[in-house]
Amino acid sequence: MADSRIVALQNKIKKYPDFPKKGVLFWDIFSLLHNPADFEVLIDVLLDVVKAKCPDVDVIVGLESRGFLFGTPLALKLKKPFIPIRKKGKLPGEVKQVSFVKEYGEDIFEMQSNSVKPGEKVLIVDDLLATGGTLKSACELVETAGGHVILCLLCIELTALKGREKIQYPCESLMMA
Amino acid sequence: MADSRIVALQNKIKKYPDFPKKGVLFWDIFSLLHNPADFEVLIDVLLDVVKAKCPDVDVIVGLESRGFLFGTPLALKLKKPFIPIRKKGKLPGEVKQVSFVKEYGEDIFEMQSNSVKPGEKVLIVDDLLATGGTLKSACELVETAGGHVILCLLCIELTALKGREKIQYPCESLMMA
Repeated sequence: MADSRIVALQNKIKKYPDFPKKGVLFWDIFSLLHNPADFEVLIDVLLDVVKAKCPDVDVIVGLESRGFLFGTPLALKLKKPFIPIRKKGKLPGEVKQVSFVKEYGEDIFEMQSNSVKPGEKVLIVDDLLATGGTLKSACELVETAGGHVILCLLCIELTALKGREKIQYPCESLMMA
Repeated sequence: MADSRIVALQNKIKKYPDFPKKGVLFWDIFSLLHNPADFEVLIDVLLDVVKAKCPDVDVIVGLESRGFLFGTPLALKLKKPFIPIRKKGKLPGEVKQVSFVKEYGEDIFEMQSNSVKPGEKVLIVDDLLATGGTLKSACELVETAGGHVILCLLCIELTALKGREKIQYPCESLMMA
């Protein structure tokens, strides 16, 4: 996305070499949240993408836990419901599940069955698109519930990992790392 | 706190018996986030508490992961930095640590060393005060960094667990379960 506000944010993000493991340059999104003005711009830019790409969104789904950081401010500004997707065992009541393979073993995501309703247009929010495994699973979960993923919105995309190729739904990342 | 808005929210929260284990009545704060109007009232009420109890706050600290849900909207509205406290190994750069004993084994919390600065007045936000173990550790971490905890702000307090007795700092809970 070409936007001078995004370029400015991108330059301000602190980068940490060799985290969480050797060879990875970690872009620390929290460094933007340390500065209220930067955080506000970040939310404004995310909102602008929503208004341009999916103004008719019904529901915001945020992935635990960094998707919560951006998902709730967006939901409040858009006056739409916020629905979490969490790791297994953390949500009460009837849930829908999807399992996915991670680097070491399997993991399970859950979403409450009474949350996303059939036919609803869903925006999925997270901080990072890396290998795409978690985002792909989140999309599956939403579609299983009868929702339609109309946009996946990420702050940062690690393009070298080609996660986007796994996602069959529209996908926008603010910054390419 | 006596406020008709809080009573209304309290009545709207879905309660699940025997979650996460038998004998526990779980108050599902996410059920309020499913309704944009309720979520907005919740944030308004939290903001009113901040304005009444600690209008001079410098920094908002949110505990992973449900503290993120309320911490970022508050930080944006107050135009203050948002600082996360996370489980071990998730934050890059130099961190401060505190360990605490949980029901099964030990856990470690971390906060970035460059985040809360000496002398800053800190508001800690989380969804739930239960046994108080995690909140006590969060307070320790902030004070170790040289910050002053001027308020701990919770949505729900399980009074029977007497967590508040562990906290040596001002503490406000919207709802008593």
